[in-house]
Amino acid sequence: MITGSGSQKVVGMDWSKRPGKPEISCDAANFENQTLLDSSSFVVVHGAGSFGHFQASKSGVHKGGLHKPLVRAGFVATRISVTTLNLEIVRVLAREGIPSVGMSPFSCGWSTSDRKMTSADLSLVTKAIDSGFVPVLHGDAVLDELQECTILSGDVIIRHLAAYLKPEYVVFLTDVLGVYDRPPSEPDAVLLREIAVNEDGSWSVVKPALQNMNKQVEITVAAHDTTGGMVTKISEAAMIAKLGIDVYIVKAATSHSLRALCGEVRGTIPDDWLGTIIRFVDKEIAST
Amino acid sequence: MITGSGSQKVVGMDWSKRPGKPEISCDAANFENQTLLDSSSFVVVHGAGSFGHFQASKSGVHKGGLHKPLVRAGFVATRISVTTLNLEIVRVLAREGIPSVGMSPFSCGWSTSDRKMTSADLSLVTKAIDSGFVPVLHGDAVLDELQECTILSGDVIIRHLAAYLKPEYVVFLTDVLGVYDRPPSEPDAVLLREIAVNEDGSWSVVKPALQNMNKQVEITVAAHDTTGGMVTKISEAAMIAKLGIDVYIVKAATSHSLRALCGEVRGTIPDDWLGTIIRFVDKEIAST
Repeated sequence: MITGSGSQKVVGMDWSKRPGKPEISCDAANFENQTLLDSSSFVVVHGAGSFGHFQASKSGVHKGGLHKPLVRAGFVATRISVTTLNLEIVRVLAREGIPSVGMSPFSCGWSTSDRKMTSADLSLVTKAIDSGFVPVLHGDAVLDELQECTILSGDVIIRHLAAYLKPEYVVFLTDVLGVYDRPPSEPDAVLLREIAVNEDGSWSVVKPALQNMNKQVEITVAAHDTTGGMVTKISEAAMIAKLGIDVYIVKAATSHSLRALCGEVRGTIPDDWLGTIIRFVDKEIAST
Repeated sequence: MITGSGSQKVVGMDWSKRPGKPEISCDAANFENQTLLDSSSFVVVHGAGSFGHFQASKSGVHKGGLHKPLVRAGFVATRISVTTLNLEIVRVLAREGIPSVGMSPFSCGWSTSDRKMTSADLSLVTKAIDSGFVPVLHGDAVLDELQECTILSGDVIIRHLAAYLKPEYVVFLTDVLGVYDRPPSEPDAVLLREIAVNEDGSWSVVKPALQNMNKQVEITVAAHDTTGGMVTKISEAAMIAKLGIDVYIVKAATSHSLRALCGEVRGTIPDDWLGTIIRFVDKEIAST
């Protein structure tokens, strides 16, 4: 996301001690002669992956009940796990010269009521962006007014950030090429290239054109996933698309995700691009 | 700080994978049969120690100028370093059964103007305490309205928390027995047992009774300390004492710090207790 970095050496921003190296590495001279890279404003939100889901599901943090010893312990354990991952991601970005700053939703005061987001001071995220940073948020254990606590998923955070920040587009990075009509491990799984979202929030597959595609789409959720897996991802993506913001679901670390992140698939989708685009279809425009 | 824990097994709340152990350790059954420990409400604030001071002083984050590449990189590097330490402290407390939650001042939206604290939503800390958690805050790099950024020290954070939360007492844990009249490494250094703070914020040594003690007190600050070292610590402690809250400066991991933390040195100071008490002296009461 940093333009013009081709000619400049990347200067890392993680000056921690590394195992096996006695000295902290910080070449201040590299910064003195450097002009600030022209970086687009962006925000990174990550889920928990193998960090957090075990702790949350084992204790039932997502179901609430903070007065129970197990849930309270699970809340603490979940936060330790997700903030460990957050710190690693901030560190990796900083090493690549991206001025990343971790922002934990719990610390930011984000909370829910009956598992729906109620309170979030999004101006803190805006301030961090305006100061030249890349905020890195994550799915987190948060307080809930009705059930005492719950898990706030990264997907829900993205939707709220998108509604507030109105970005040009949102990219979901995943470990498969995009959304399939059935679990992608199955041999006949078909990659859905374009999903149209309607005014009422319902969605249908536009590309590839298959009869009764909707009915054929099977969605499974892993047993340990406390935040809904692909179902949540698509429904949150559909809600973002309804705001007029295109959503691209792509495989991380591929040319497809790079192109999506650089904004190359806005407008007409290139034929050689693999991924799923989720777009709002304005019926009035569509019918003309 | 947890009472009644003598008869109960400590059940850890850090369920992360440990090096050399393939399985995550979480004995849920231990929690099912456990009643919640009766823990006093408390807050932990830590500084940066060897984490953060190097990064901050090397880049001059405390002096501001976030538009400069080196300062911006230093801000990122400082936050990585202090949040790494914060996570370790949260983890150590959780392993001892203390329901600790990390709360980064930057993420909480704390900010300064001309290096003085202006904005801090302290209600987030109260909410965490009321939910049964022990918030763990730390010295942090924050945004500054006038000079773009600065370092907010743990000592300043404690003062603001004390003014808001009105705790019974505040304990500063350090690596020496308390405040000395000169660097404690010097052979003739005398431990100051009691310091009285006056209405105007000035302070004088009450115990031991030495002539012109004030004049004899030498205070040095390490070159790498961006937040003022012992000078800041005493002046912040004096400001807390002025609120009518006793401050104890004690050596960590000793019987003296344990007694101070348990509130045993409130009122008359035991003769066999070693540490420095900083107390407000109400002149009107003192003169009667």
